[in-house]
Amino acid sequence: MKGFRASFLDVIADPFYREESECIRYFADALLVVADGKVLEIGNYTDLRPKYADIPITNYSDRLIVSGFIDTHIHFPQTEMIAAYGEQLLEWLSTYTFPTERKFSDRNYAQKISSIFLDELLKNGTTTALVFAAVFPQSVDAFFEEAQSRNLRMIAGKVMMDRNAPDFLTDTAESSYIETKQLIEKWHKCDRLLYAVTPRFAITSTSEQLSNAGKLLAEFPDVYLHTHLSENVKEVEAVAELFPDSKGYLDVYDQAGLVTELSIFAHGVQLTEAEFSRLSEAKAAIAFCPTSNLFLGSGLFKLEKAKSTETPVKVGMGTDVGAGTSFSMLRTASAAYQVAQLRSQKLSAFQALFLATLGGAMALCLEDKLGNFEVGKEADFVVLNLRSTSIMELRNQSFDVSNPLTLAQISDQLFATLIMGDDRAIAATYIMGEIAYSQ
Amino acid sequence: MKGFRASFLDVIADPFYREESECIRYFADALLVVADGKVLEIGNYTDLRPKYADIPITNYSDRLIVSGFIDTHIHFPQTEMIAAYGEQLLEWLSTYTFPTERKFSDRNYAQKISSIFLDELLKNGTTTALVFAAVFPQSVDAFFEEAQSRNLRMIAGKVMMDRNAPDFLTDTAESSYIETKQLIEKWHKCDRLLYAVTPRFAITSTSEQLSNAGKLLAEFPDVYLHTHLSENVKEVEAVAELFPDSKGYLDVYDQAGLVTELSIFAHGVQLTEAEFSRLSEAKAAIAFCPTSNLFLGSGLFKLEKAKSTETPVKVGMGTDVGAGTSFSMLRTASAAYQVAQLRSQKLSAFQALFLATLGGAMALCLEDKLGNFEVGKEADFVVLNLRSTSIMELRNQSFDVSNPLTLAQISDQLFATLIMGDDRAIAATYIMGEIAYSQ
Repeated sequence: MKGFRASFLDVIADPFYREESECIRYFADALLVVADGKVLEIGNYTDLRPKYADIPITNYSDRLIVSGFIDTHIHFPQTEMIAAYGEQLLEWLSTYTFPTERKFSDRNYAQKISSIFLDELLKNGTTTALVFAAVFPQSVDAFFEEAQSRNLRMIAGKVMMDRNAPDFLTDTAESSYIETKQLIEKWHKCDRLLYAVTPRFAITSTSEQLSNAGKLLAEFPDVYLHTHLSENVKEVEAVAELFPDSKGYLDVYDQAGLVTELSIFAHGVQLTEAEFSRLSEAKAAIAFCPTSNLFLGSGLFKLEKAKSTETPVKVGMGTDVGAGTSFSMLRTASAAYQVAQLRSQKLSAFQALFLATLGGAMALCLEDKLGNFEVGKEADFVVLNLRSTSIMELRNQSFDVSNPLTLAQISDQLFATLIMGDDRAIAATYIMGEIAYSQ
Repeated sequence: MKGFRASFLDVIADPFYREESECIRYFADALLVVADGKVLEIGNYTDLRPKYADIPITNYSDRLIVSGFIDTHIHFPQTEMIAAYGEQLLEWLSTYTFPTERKFSDRNYAQKISSIFLDELLKNGTTTALVFAAVFPQSVDAFFEEAQSRNLRMIAGKVMMDRNAPDFLTDTAESSYIETKQLIEKWHKCDRLLYAVTPRFAITSTSEQLSNAGKLLAEFPDVYLHTHLSENVKEVEAVAELFPDSKGYLDVYDQAGLVTELSIFAHGVQLTEAEFSRLSEAKAAIAFCPTSNLFLGSGLFKLEKAKSTETPVKVGMGTDVGAGTSFSMLRTASAAYQVAQLRSQKLSAFQALFLATLGGAMALCLEDKLGNFEVGKEADFVVLNLRSTSIMELRNQSFDVSNPLTLAQISDQLFATLIMGDDRAIAATYIMGEIAYSQ
């Protein structure tokens, strides 16, 4: 058993639907007690300290601790090709992505990049991610081994891709089924790891392969489905041509049985009203990837549609590295704010924090395990420094456990940190109560 | 006399209109010779070294030196209010900006923030900026004193604002004329400093005040005009209501004689075709401020219109802090790339570097003094580290003077640095050949 003393901030309900004051907990001076890697208790320091008089305490008296960030869409084999120049989605894939992913047939290479990738996530305060591996099963093994050695809660899967891609990157409907099945049996629920059936997107899968993906979901009802959906206008047009019998892009997946409560669709920038309705009905989730959508010029996600009362759809944020330009969920939140502003919408600091924590957990149906400091949840958390650069020092006043902020002040400081912050704002990252990264 | 050995990259012509290879100079291993703060010579190190055998040499063998960045639109009194939440332009001004600018009636406070502001610019590799002060003349004095003590080439001016703002921030048509005239006489061409007549924008100036601004330009034909133009849709509508006799927003300025070769208009997001033509004809310039336009949701600047052959308009980049979210011209370039992508345009690394250096100099009619390493220009330059973070180290291969890159490689590495870089990529900043910032 151990304790952490600091200011804490977490989100316990969805601030898109309720008053923020009902959704946010701010503890100016709290004690977080961790036992067996999980939250045993959190509360006012002076109240709790006597009860835990003998446990060792780590002090972060001028820091703000928040729940670990959850990245609901990212590609580990694209780590090294981040910030590739000049193309929109389809050309970007063929010019940069496919040649890079080819390297991941080499198990050792995949291991090396997995390690760098996970270090980068932890450095940015991201403790859980939903991850595309490459088409090669060994790339999944490499990734999960590295994640397991760090005791991380990670979800990943082998890309399924049996057409419209170079030969060296394609599997077949049959082989993708067999390989995915083996990987599920090997890794799903192994320690904290979970598996996602991962067809790249409708363009690179035949109907047969998508059906096999659906068959896997039926056989393993607690594995995830992770794919791309309606990112780019030309992509949507190409899907319509490839699947003339479908009612639309989402319907292609629906016909294969891929639209479930455990389905996470990246992007959704071009979704129709009917598709929002269908996602809402199915309780499927969208990974909103604003740095990627801006970098590839895909467009502006209609967050207010997903967070409407008519067609509520679960939403997490994704960095989408390597089309996304940063591993940082802070920079991702900053881009999300820009997208909202360009659509004359507002995204508050607490709403952004929700998307990065509890909202991500809900998108992944992991809100019983992750997303805030409720008792029994896994103690993955981030120690934030709100004054990590000279300009943020000027912008954000100092505070500490003996000199608390108001909720309005913490909102303002958090907002500035989301807008200007980067990996330097991450003072430390903890996994199951153990330090995993420290600046 | 002194020398610098490193890889150098500069832009000597406009890559929006000519082949990039004709516009870019890349010296893999160069010697830059500086005498009296100016470029005496630049060339291949081994060729030049014998000629300058006795001068002291500073080595940056694994760094890339580029010309100092030029920020063509920024507000020094808004430094502390960067990243203010939730509003678009007009509400943002009244909610956050005006109360903050009020503080700058205090000369000491203005001096303190000027110093922080200039340090922040140098830390980000910005060596020249076109700067809004506050309405108070003492805020201009404070700024110029600090800039002068650092030997910087800076352009600034007192805000002129005689209506639609709080009483504590307004001058009058008469007082703004007198005070501006005194400031011009005191500061224009004092050392490296230059003055810009600075009406905030059409909404906060009467016709009489704008006429007085025009009168000042006529009396002092080599001072600048610096103001805002067509940033936000509601702003454009408000201007149309306030000036019913004008043909449009730009025409309001034109009628007052404010559209000249030395005029720099910030934003221009909502410009009409006719306004692009008029700006082109007048040889006036636009400051493109992408982080600000995204943060305030103002919209997407039509860079390709300004850089067309039909209506070419000079363009520099501006951070527009405090509506802009970063002092970094690298992050500004990254946002410019996103704006281009969202408009299905491409902005190359060399084009972005042009906008940040020679293009900015041309926008300010300072291309005889700044913008690249041509002989006789002032030696303001930046030492770039292209591998300043762990992810950039993975993305960008190492190089040094003995192991040069190709032009394609340098373009690729520069692009990644523009997209992912921040102040950490600025290893050092030199002013007139003297070190002014080092990490």
